[in-house]
Amino acid sequence: MGDTFRFITFLSDYGLEDEFVGVCHGVMRSVAPEVEIIDIVHALPPQDVRAGATALAQALPHMPPAVHLAVVDPGVGTRRRAVVIETASGSPMVGPDNGLLWLGASALGGPTAAYAIENDEILTAEPSRTFHGRDIFAPVAARIARGMDPATVGPPVPIDELIQLGLQVARVDDDHVHGVVNGIDHFGNLQLNVARQDLEGIGVLLGDVLEVRVGGRSYQVPWGQAFSEVPVGRLILLEDAHRWITLAMNQANARDALEARRADPVILARVHAEATRVS
Amino acid sequence: MGDTFRFITFLSDYGLEDEFVGVCHGVMRSVAPEVEIIDIVHALPPQDVRAGATALAQALPHMPPAVHLAVVDPGVGTRRRAVVIETASGSPMVGPDNGLLWLGASALGGPTAAYAIENDEILTAEPSRTFHGRDIFAPVAARIARGMDPATVGPPVPIDELIQLGLQVARVDDDHVHGVVNGIDHFGNLQLNVARQDLEGIGVLLGDVLEVRVGGRSYQVPWGQAFSEVPVGRLILLEDAHRWITLAMNQANARDALEARRADPVILARVHAEATRVS
Amino acid sequence: MGDTFRFITFLSDYGLEDEFVGVCHGVMRSVAPEVEIIDIVHALPPQDVRAGATALAQALPHMPPAVHLAVVDPGVGTRRRAVVIETASGSPMVGPDNGLLWLGASALGGPTAAYAIENDEILTAEPSRTFHGRDIFAPVAARIARGMDPATVGPPVPIDELIQLGLQVARVDDDHVHGVVNGIDHFGNLQLNVARQDLEGIGVLLGDVLEVRVGGRSYQVPWGQAFSEVPVGRLILLEDAHRWITLAMNQANARDALEARRADPVILARVHAEATRVS
Repeated sequence: MGDTFRFITFLSDYGLEDEFVGVCHGVMRSVAPEVEIIDIVHALPPQDVRAGATALAQALPHMPPAVHLAVVDPGVGTRRRAVVIETASGSPMVGPDNGLLWLGASALGGPTAAYAIENDEILTAEPSRTFHGRDIFAPVAARIARGMDPATVGPPVPIDELIQLGLQVARVDDDHVHGVVNGIDHFGNLQLNVARQDLEGIGVLLGDVLEVRVGGRSYQVPWGQAFSEVPVGRLILLEDAHRWITLAMNQANARDALEARRADPVILARVHAEATRVS
Repeated sequence: MGDTFRFITFLSDYGLEDEFVGVCHGVMRSVAPEVEIIDIVHALPPQDVRAGATALAQALPHMPPAVHLAVVDPGVGTRRRAVVIETASGSPMVGPDNGLLWLGASALGGPTAAYAIENDEILTAEPSRTFHGRDIFAPVAARIARGMDPATVGPPVPIDELIQLGLQVARVDDDHVHGVVNGIDHFGNLQLNVARQDLEGIGVLLGDVLEVRVGGRSYQVPWGQAFSEVPVGRLILLEDAHRWITLAMNQANARDALEARRADPVILARVHAEATRVS
Repeated sequence: MGDTFRFITFLSDYGLEDEFVGVCHGVMRSVAPEVEIIDIVHALPPQDVRAGATALAQALPHMPPAVHLAVVDPGVGTRRRAVVIETASGSPMVGPDNGLLWLGASALGGPTAAYAIENDEILTAEPSRTFHGRDIFAPVAARIARGMDPATVGPPVPIDELIQLGLQVARVDDDHVHGVVNGIDHFGNLQLNVARQDLEGIGVLLGDVLEVRVGGRSYQVPWGQAFSEVPVGRLILLEDAHRWITLAMNQANARDALEARRADPVILARVHAEATRVS
C-alpha cells in the first residue's frame, strides 16, 4: 500500500465545450467515491505542452497534498510513455511522459522515482487510442489516491530518462535582456521569461523606465509594482505573482494592443539618461 | 422513500459567462448540503438539444450511481413536460421532456418509469417562466438525491409517450457511406455518425485509404488508430473513444481546416486500387 | 471564535484559460481541507466591477450559509481596501472594497459590520501586488470558514464608509421608460434595469405590444411570459428569473441581432392604439 490522498488535482487541455473533463471526474469518482477533485485549469491552448507545463508548475506549490493528474497529450495513442512520478513532496504525479510533468515535479522538490504505466491488470480491458485521460490516467490517479502503491503500475523508469522540458532562459547582453513571451493570461498580460535579477543585471532598478521592443515597435515603459501606477491603458512592467516580469496595461489588454503572441521575442533595454521621457 | 444518492451529475447549456450554473449548485446544496455534484459540461451550443443528448449519452456510462440532472430547454415556460425518468441502472434522470434525456436513458439500460413534475407541494412557491433549472429541476434532483421517491413528483407518464430523439443512422450504399458530422469537439475533431461496421460494409479495412467528401471537396484519408500515424496537419479517420468514426487532423483543427459544421453531410467512399495515393 | 461554514462561494473575473481559479481553490483547501467550494462564476467580463456585483447579488439569495468570496479587482495593489463584511444573514463576504460586494450584501439583508484586512499576522509573509485572490482573499475566506472571527482581520470600517455601487434606476417619463442594458447573458438575452412596475407606470400591461428603441432603431415587441409566445427569431419582452424586464429572442440571440452592448440605452414606449401591429 502507498499513502492515501484526499485530493486529486486535475489539469488538462480538454476544454469546456465537451464532456471530456466531466467524464474523467466520473471515472475518478467511480473508482474513488470519497476523493475530492481540484480542477487547476482545462481551457489551455489545445495540445500546447509548454503552456500546460507552465500552468502546472505555477499551480502546484499552492495545492494541498494530492495526486496530481495532468493531461496535455498530442502523442496520445503513440509509443510515448504514460508515467507516474513520485516527488520529494510526497505528492505523486500522473500523466504522459512528454515534458508536461517536468517543471511541476521540480516545483514539488524534484522527482524521486518514476514508473511506466504498463500493467495490464490495472488498466481498462480495452483502452481507447484517443482518450487516455478517461481510460488510463484518471483510473490510475484514482487508484493511487485510494492507496495503490505507484510501483504497481509498471516498471521503474530512470529519472534521467524522463522527458525534460526546461524553462527558456532569457539572455542578458550588456544593457539589453533578450526574452520571450512565456505566457499570456486572461487579462492579456504578457508574462516574460525575465526575472528581476535579469533587469538588475542590465543596471535597471524598480522605478526606472525601460525601452521595450516587441512586434517591431518600441515603447518606453516604467518598471513598477502595481497596475495602477500608470494611467488606464498605459503599459507597465511588473513582477507578477510568480516572480516573472510581466508586460501589462492598467485596466486594458496588452496582448490585443500589442498584437502579441506566446513565444514572441521581447527586448528590454536600459534607457540612457537623456531619453527617459515616457511616450 | 426512494434510494439516496451521493452524487448529482449536471449537464446544461447555461454556459460559463453567467451565474446560472453556480446558482443551480447553490440551490442543490441548500436542499441537500451533503450531496456532491459532478459537472458533465455546461458550455454546449445554446439550446441545441441534440448536442446535449449526445454528450449526456456519451458521459453517463462513466458516471457513478447518481441523480442525472440535464437542462437544455429551448421550450422553457411552455407546456413541454418536466420529467423524472427512472432507468434500469437504478440512476434516475431529471430534465425537460424534449428528447434530451432519451439517448442517455438508453445508455443506462433504458427507461423503466417516468413521472411528470407537476406536484405543487414540492415546487418553489412561484417558479419563474425562464429559469426552470433553478426553480424546478435542481430542487427536484436534490430532493431525489436525499431519498424522495421519484413517484412523488407527479403523475406517471407512459414510457412510449416520452419524446424520443434517436441517433441519425448513416446509410451504406454499395461502396459509399452517407453520414453526417454528429459533433465537433474542442480540438476540432469531427465525430461522424458512422461506425466501424459501416466502413467494413463497404469493403474497407483498418489501414486502407478512403475518399472523404465534405464541404464540396474530396480528400484521400487513411483509416488508422492514432492521430500520430499521419504527419502533423494531415487528415486521418479514427474510431474515437465512443466507437464512432472521427475525421481528425494530427495536432491540428479539422473543423477550421475544412470549415465544417455539425450536421454537414460527409461521404466516405472506398478507393479503388488504382487511386490510393494519399493527396 | 466565529461561526464555522461548510461552504465558501467563489466569484471572480479570473477567467478559465489560466490556473488562477484552481490556485485559489488549492489555497483554500490547503487552509481548510474540509471546506466545500461553490463556484458562482469566473468568466465575467474582465475588471468589470458592475457585472460582478450584479451576478453576485443575483446568486447569493440561492446559496446555502457560506463565506462569500468575490474578486473583481482592477485596483489590486493600490490603496483600495480589502474587507470582510458581515451581513444580517449571518454569511460574511470577503473581497475588495470597490463596490463589488455592496449589492450582494444588500441581498443578504444588509451589512452589519465591516473590517479592513490589515492584520499582518494572518497574511502570507509577502503577498504579491498582483494576485490578492491567492495571497489575501482566499486564505482569509478559508480561515473564516474554519471559525476565525472576522474581527480578527483588522480594524472595523464604518459601514457608511464602504464603497457603494447602486443599481442604475430606470426613468419613467409619461409614456416612456428610459432604461439601459444591465447585463447580457450567455443566450444573448438583454436584461434591462426596468421592472414590471415601470412598465405598469406607463400604462402597459402584460400582453401589450411596446415600441422598443435600441441602437438607433425601433421594434414593436410584445410583453409576454415565455420565449415561445413569439415565433423563433422574434423579439419578446419578459420578466426574467430575477424580476427584471428582459429583451430576448425566441431561440435566437438578441445581442447579436441588435448589436447591443451592456449599458446601451433602451427606451420602452407605450404604443397607441392605432399602431399596435407587430413588425
